[in-house]
Amino acid sequence: MAGPSVPATFLLKDELDIVIPTIRNLDFLEMWRPFFQPYHLIIVQDGDPSKTIKVPEGFDYELYNRNDINRILGPKASCISFKDSACRCFGYMVSKKKYIYTIDDDCFVAKDPSGKDINALEQHITNLLCPSTPLFFNTLYDPYRDGADFVRGYPFSMREGAKTAVSHGLWLNVPDYDAPTQLVKPLERNTRFVDAVMTIPKGTLFPMCGMNLAFDRELIGPAMYFGLMGDGQPIGRYDDMWAGWCVKVICDHLGLGVKTGLPYIYHSKASNPFVNLKKEYKGIFWQEECIPFFQSATLPKDCTTVQSCYLELSKQVKEKLGKVDEYFVKLADAMVTWIEAWDELNGAPAAIANGSA
Amino acid sequence: MAGPSVPATFLLKDELDIVIPTIRNLDFLEMWRPFFQPYHLIIVQDGDPSKTIKVPEGFDYELYNRNDINRILGPKASCISFKDSACRCFGYMVSKKKYIYTIDDDCFVAKDPSGKDINALEQHITNLLCPSTPLFFNTLYDPYRDGADFVRGYPFSMREGAKTAVSHGLWLNVPDYDAPTQLVKPLERNTRFVDAVMTIPKGTLFPMCGMNLAFDRELIGPAMYFGLMGDGQPIGRYDDMWAGWCVKVICDHLGLGVKTGLPYIYHSKASNPFVNLKKEYKGIFWQEECIPFFQSATLPKDCTTVQSCYLELSKQVKEKLGKVDEYFVKLADAMVTWIEAWDELNGAPAAIANGSA
Repeated sequence: MAGPSVPATFLLKDELDIVIPTIRNLDFLEMWRPFFQPYHLIIVQDGDPSKTIKVPEGFDYELYNRNDINRILGPKASCISFKDSACRCFGYMVSKKKYIYTIDDDCFVAKDPSGKDINALEQHITNLLCPSTPLFFNTLYDPYRDGADFVRGYPFSMREGAKTAVSHGLWLNVPDYDAPTQLVKPLERNTRFVDAVMTIPKGTLFPMCGMNLAFDRELIGPAMYFGLMGDGQPIGRYDDMWAGWCVKVICDHLGLGVKTGLPYIYHSKASNPFVNLKKEYKGIFWQEECIPFFQSATLPKDCTTVQSCYLELSKQVKEKLGKVDEYFVKLADAMVTWIEAWDELNGAPAAIANGSA
Repeated sequence: MAGPSVPATFLLKDELDIVIPTIRNLDFLEMWRPFFQPYHLIIVQDGDPSKTIKVPEGFDYELYNRNDINRILGPKASCISFKDSACRCFGYMVSKKKYIYTIDDDCFVAKDPSGKDINALEQHITNLLCPSTPLFFNTLYDPYRDGADFVRGYPFSMREGAKTAVSHGLWLNVPDYDAPTQLVKPLERNTRFVDAVMTIPKGTLFPMCGMNLAFDRELIGPAMYFGLMGDGQPIGRYDDMWAGWCVKVICDHLGLGVKTGLPYIYHSKASNPFVNLKKEYKGIFWQEECIPFFQSATLPKDCTTVQSCYLELSKQVKEKLGKVDEYFVKLADAMVTWIEAWDELNGAPAAIANGSA
């Protein structure tokens, strides 16, 4: 595929890390070279640490395998999943940058309706640098976008918006379906390019997919924990969902915004639905309990840092979801370990000001 | 402009009325002929009742002017605005159909990106006949649309959705901006066609525009009151906003869905921003009080009909917004009169079942 006709500008080049979890050679980066090459990559190698992962020449990267994770975190490495892409959150923790973009290695450059390659990273950065509008819905979508604004009836006091913590991008071609839907609709492909970015309103949860995701690490990083999945755990494929529920509750509490919509990436192939069903089936039951739990979760006013919010949430998880399954007791403990490890590597948190207008 | 190349199907032909408020001849209907002609029109003539409004030949319609409204409603006609398009809600009241589509007479047929004429009415009907998803956000927009579905992580118990009460359509060309934004951006035009329909989540308010709006009269009709605007009132251009706030609170309470997005109409020309500013300026202050009021409004469980919800809301308006300005006391009384008039013309309400899954 050809590179973009106009040279890309490399926004936030020194303030953003690209985190990629992988078990294979990163040939997919060739296609992303015009957009990613100037950025620093953090590669989290999953599975067998003796395997060598090849990274195309010219990329600046650091790579961590399981031995590295164990060495750096010691006993706290128990909070990082193994044999599951949930391990990517280790990359968030070791980064020293303000922003993170994370992408799966089966995601390629998508084309917009005019046939132009989409610079997904640039759009995510635009989303993150521009405010969100969580308190009231704007019917013309992102009011800060060129050619758009707040419509009649949008309260003026809310037009300053809130700081954006998360930018959730979408996928053309293979949509992010659960195993039952994959089984029922094996051939369905997403071909609809919806030219919109929108804020997910305060109080509304959403299914956050980790395939094509950017966030402000300083604002929300410690809540981007992808849980305990994969090897030795009763569940998989709920890592990003878990993070999304926690992140949204905390963003709502702290007055931060979460956006979804553009940019699209091209998701090349569907994972095996039978394997997925095995990973997911407990989650399919559990999410029926988790979602009402997160929908009604409230955090006390004195939780003013992401860390304190997250630790409070872990208590509530243990108390309320611990009754659903023993797994959630273990997960709640891992949430605490995650915060301890985060603070060990990143220093103590400072209280953040409320981001809403 | 040419008619559609494929003959339109006329869904719900005998179950839907098109309500048009106007002060001029309805030449704009010529362009809509291929889509509207088989439907019944209810024309609400505003202003001087001695003026004759010409309706293009071949349309089936009933027309009400101010004399008719006064005759039909008697003293209760006081709840219907005069010299303001808010008078359109009289048409909702006298209709005997299940569905209403209302459109302004400066709205024309828009074209989709392929250049095809958009059958706005057909899309509204599709929106209304298909469930909404107010309880959880679907990142691929309307999950019931062809080629789309619920994404991974969407709780299965919520996939049945809720009944759709309202379909809010958008506008290409002149966007629906308030006077200050019109003044600041006189040349801004909306050219972005966003190919999406979405449910506005439960608990989230939105600015409902009455220019291109459809709803299920049986589900939500009595809440579609456009308030006291225009002649003798201190405010204008908040008629649809007021209706939207009330409707959304009641839909949330009754478990009904509200959608926004497609279809687009082509909004031909901007109204005078100086005139608009005069109409709006009190609203600009008042909405800062109204929106927090509606955001925190709750209705008791025993309000199971739209009417009982609306009467309860009128009490709360009087009690809480009455302190902001005397106008809201008058408006609260008019809300009660509206319901009395509605029931007089339509019979007593029956409790409706909760529409959510």
